[in-house]
Amino acid sequence: MGQADYPQICPGGGLIISWQLKRKRVLLVGGGPVAAGRLVNVKDADAIVTVICPSSGLCGEMKHRIYVEKCVDEYEDRVFGGKEDVMGYDMVLTAIDDAALSREICQMARALRIPVNVADVPPECDFYFGSLIRRGPLQVMVSTGGKGPRIAAQTRRIIQRAIPKNLGQAIENVGRLRAMLRSEAPQAAAGPKRMSWMIDVCEKWSFDELATLEEDEMRIILRGWKDGSVPSARQVRGISRTLPDSKRIRKAIVGRCPVAGYISPWLAGFAGILLGSAITSTLFIARSSKRA
Amino acid sequence: MGQADYPQICPGGGLIISWQLKRKRVLLVGGGPVAAGRLVNVKDADAIVTVICPSSGLCGEMKHRIYVEKCVDEYEDRVFGGKEDVMGYDMVLTAIDDAALSREICQMARALRIPVNVADVPPECDFYFGSLIRRGPLQVMVSTGGKGPRIAAQTRRIIQRAIPKNLGQAIENVGRLRAMLRSEAPQAAAGPKRMSWMIDVCEKWSFDELATLEEDEMRIILRGWKDGSVPSARQVRGISRTLPDSKRIRKAIVGRCPVAGYISPWLAGFAGILLGSAITSTLFIARSSKRA
Repeated sequence: MGQADYPQICPGGGLIISWQLKRKRVLLVGGGPVAAGRLVNVKDADAIVTVICPSSGLCGEMKHRIYVEKCVDEYEDRVFGGKEDVMGYDMVLTAIDDAALSREICQMARALRIPVNVADVPPECDFYFGSLIRRGPLQVMVSTGGKGPRIAAQTRRIIQRAIPKNLGQAIENVGRLRAMLRSEAPQAAAGPKRMSWMIDVCEKWSFDELATLEEDEMRIILRGWKDGSVPSARQVRGISRTLPDSKRIRKAIVGRCPVAGYISPWLAGFAGILLGSAITSTLFIARSSKRA
Repeated sequence: MGQADYPQICPGGGLIISWQLKRKRVLLVGGGPVAAGRLVNVKDADAIVTVICPSSGLCGEMKHRIYVEKCVDEYEDRVFGGKEDVMGYDMVLTAIDDAALSREICQMARALRIPVNVADVPPECDFYFGSLIRRGPLQVMVSTGGKGPRIAAQTRRIIQRAIPKNLGQAIENVGRLRAMLRSEAPQAAAGPKRMSWMIDVCEKWSFDELATLEEDEMRIILRGWKDGSVPSARQVRGISRTLPDSKRIRKAIVGRCPVAGYISPWLAGFAGILLGSAITSTLFIARSSKRA
């Protein structure tokens, strides 16, 4: 086999992974806006979080998270004390202005082999945070390898705009249907058949249709599981709820005639002028020749 | 401040991070297609990799990486031996069929506090791999939280299609320009000014223009640094290389009049018919009234 058959290795990146924090303890030292951002990151991942920061150093968001939302599992109103503060944690994050203390905390964590991130000090980070887009179960991370903050934000915006609004809900519903299928056919041996049936569902139902799936409809779809069939949205819902919107009409036309995808409003407008003119001319000429 | 001011916490995700593997040692147990995929992941992140797998178990890609590309730093043609095989590594990955051995390796790694991933066995993973899109320095990871493989692939395709072809090169060039700027103005105190100047560059130059930047052009742009100005692509290149394409014309119009972004070819075509008809009618009526 030739070299071209395998993906090319492109050095210089990071290893982008989804770190599992469920039931894991995270220590967050700091209470400013950066710390507040980190808190959201780790709570999104179901971590058990301890925040150490004197209350005088808490920003508005952090106060809100601690006292109103109460999503900080343990808050210690004091400065960082020393090695014993780091022990027993599965991850340590610092976001404080004191560079010397940050370095010390990093060294303590590394001595205990606890993954550590010191905000804004790359050499003191075992891992970096990137720009995240979240839509329910869908997480998209965009990393530009630190080449420039503005182009990273621009890239993020492009990707954000490209994600269909209902995609998060569609993914959520596919997950629910899959869980229902698993409890209906829990045997490990059914794994491959389950997977191929779920693939059929995702191919037969559009994102819009998946996003609006209700539990009773899921149960109707599941009836097809035994004979390996997947009823379409039209079969499950009747025609009324599946009337295609303009986007889908366009998609259907473009699917059959790809050139239609390139018709710009300019071209269509121009063609319209010609057509309108032609029709009207014909009418006028027909009328005048009749009169004559 | 109200609750609405802060981003909502959405539990149930993973912590998506860019793990740093430069000069770190990774042990990869296994030699099949999944192991070959992992190898690409960690070599993309500049890891030093040891592969343990009997040569009889190497797939075509793995053989190619070991013997032709020689990108595996250490290859051991044998089965996994025991605890001493795991020691000294910064990360352990297994992709083998033997579930009992996988579990053992996982336990050894965890006892030594080495991050570990056992392919296809979530409880034996400290972290998961996701679907990655790579374009030079740009890395995009798409994670659907394991809700379904097909909808994950569909999501990945949507995002992949949305990324402009030249974006990776544009980011690369912004990084080069930034490095040149840093060596021109290395003082830490110049940081904020450097950042705002780089932002101006990214706003003044389109992705197409950035992607085609050459080193001599970067030097011309850098001349503006001292007085805080950024020459435009037109100023640097003359008019010929910067003639706007139809997309950019459209963008410029939509930028000034957002409603134009919603004009569909259908609407434009219909408006054209009316306009064409109106113009022709006027001409005919004018002519006939003249005649009369």
